[in-house]
Amino acid sequence: MACERALVLLSGGMDSTVCAAVAARDGYEVWTLSFDYGQRHRAELEAARAVADVYGIPPVRRRTLDLSRVFCGSALTGDAEVPLDRDTAEMAAGIPATYVPARNLVFLALATAVAEPLDAHHLFIGVNALDYSGYPDCRPEFVTAFEAAARLGTAAGVAIHTPLAHLTKAGIVQLGQAIGAPLHLTLTCYRGTVPACGRCDACQLRRKGFAEAGLADPIPYAADGPPAER
Amino acid sequence: MACERALVLLSGGMDSTVCAAVAARDGYEVWTLSFDYGQRHRAELEAARAVADVYGIPPVRRRTLDLSRVFCGSALTGDAEVPLDRDTAEMAAGIPATYVPARNLVFLALATAVAEPLDAHHLFIGVNALDYSGYPDCRPEFVTAFEAAARLGTAAGVAIHTPLAHLTKAGIVQLGQAIGAPLHLTLTCYRGTVPACGRCDACQLRRKGFAEAGLADPIPYAADGPPAER
Repeated sequence: MACERALVLLSGGMDSTVCAAVAARDGYEVWTLSFDYGQRHRAELEAARAVADVYGIPPVRRRTLDLSRVFCGSALTGDAEVPLDRDTAEMAAGIPATYVPARNLVFLALATAVAEPLDAHHLFIGVNALDYSGYPDCRPEFVTAFEAAARLGTAAGVAIHTPLAHLTKAGIVQLGQAIGAPLHLTLTCYRGTVPACGRCDACQLRRKGFAEAGLADPIPYAADGPPAER
Repeated sequence: MACERALVLLSGGMDSTVCAAVAARDGYEVWTLSFDYGQRHRAELEAARAVADVYGIPPVRRRTLDLSRVFCGSALTGDAEVPLDRDTAEMAAGIPATYVPARNLVFLALATAVAEPLDAHHLFIGVNALDYSGYPDCRPEFVTAFEAAARLGTAAGVAIHTPLAHLTKAGIVQLGQAIGAPLHLTLTCYRGTVPACGRCDACQLRRKGFAEAGLADPIPYAADGPPAER
């Protein structure tokens, strides 16, 4: 049987990297789509390239779209401060400052547009249970609604795979470890520093995930980061 | 009551121009969003600007996004020939060569992302009954499905207005005429020539619409275009 094509939304973070690993494990011909949306950390795109290299994905199968003129006004794009040292309750209270308007809606729409002429009828996106708490476009019901819209709005439709949807961050770490995802190459920190800051929401959730999974995080953290305690 | 903001997807064509006219008539503060997606006719964007000028929309309320790296492989973007002199049956048979993958899906997703930080909770898009025949993402059920996805995927959601949804091209012409839409400024021809070619699907449908509405089309056509007969 010919290998089916999957387009993986690959940010260079841990979640999308585990998604790429799942798609590769499941036998898809993996294509990647990365978005440059004026992140303060272009380092994320470098991480995406390193991950794609690990999976032997040739340049012709990699797409990067420049969305820097689309997203503005969120902490991820440089217009606001990244909040630091928040506890879990603060993170869970409403939509975070790092919210980018309709990000996954735009990402999935563009992925659908990119996938169709490639005859890639499978999209992989790393939305998960934790993100669900703060970002409306990470909710499973959003993904299902989007899939329905895409099916009606395109010639062939796409199947949207969310292999992390019901995993905690610890579950994602364990899955990534089990299938050999190159977690050491991934970049998570909202501030995009190397070593990672360890204090932004993303760093804290990642460290907590590794701690709960009982595994050592292979990336370096700044000495002033707090311990990864719950 | 403060004026509510509406973001109108304005291509510079007749349909989106009538949409802008409807939004203005209905008392919205009109903002416009135009897309540059490598059209062979940048003239369309010029037409959009001229229409926005007519409605006194200041530059700060106009957005243009460059999608030239997203869409490829369709006649509208220069990679294929625009079919000429097709009859209505040929136009109705399947997805046309001018189909751009998931165009309205991407347009609506980007419009939702642009609208949210502007506190614009209304989107106007000129999909209509005729387009329904060939483009999957012009179907009313697609728009409804998208609206549901956007409501789940954003903080505030958007209401999508499709004032032309159930109009024929003749009905659009009559509506535009009745509310003073500047139809003389609009550009319809897929080939983007001035005078218009009169032979591509878009020109033929436009001329037929004016003929059925019993009105003269105010734009010039090339002498080699066929008469606007049914």
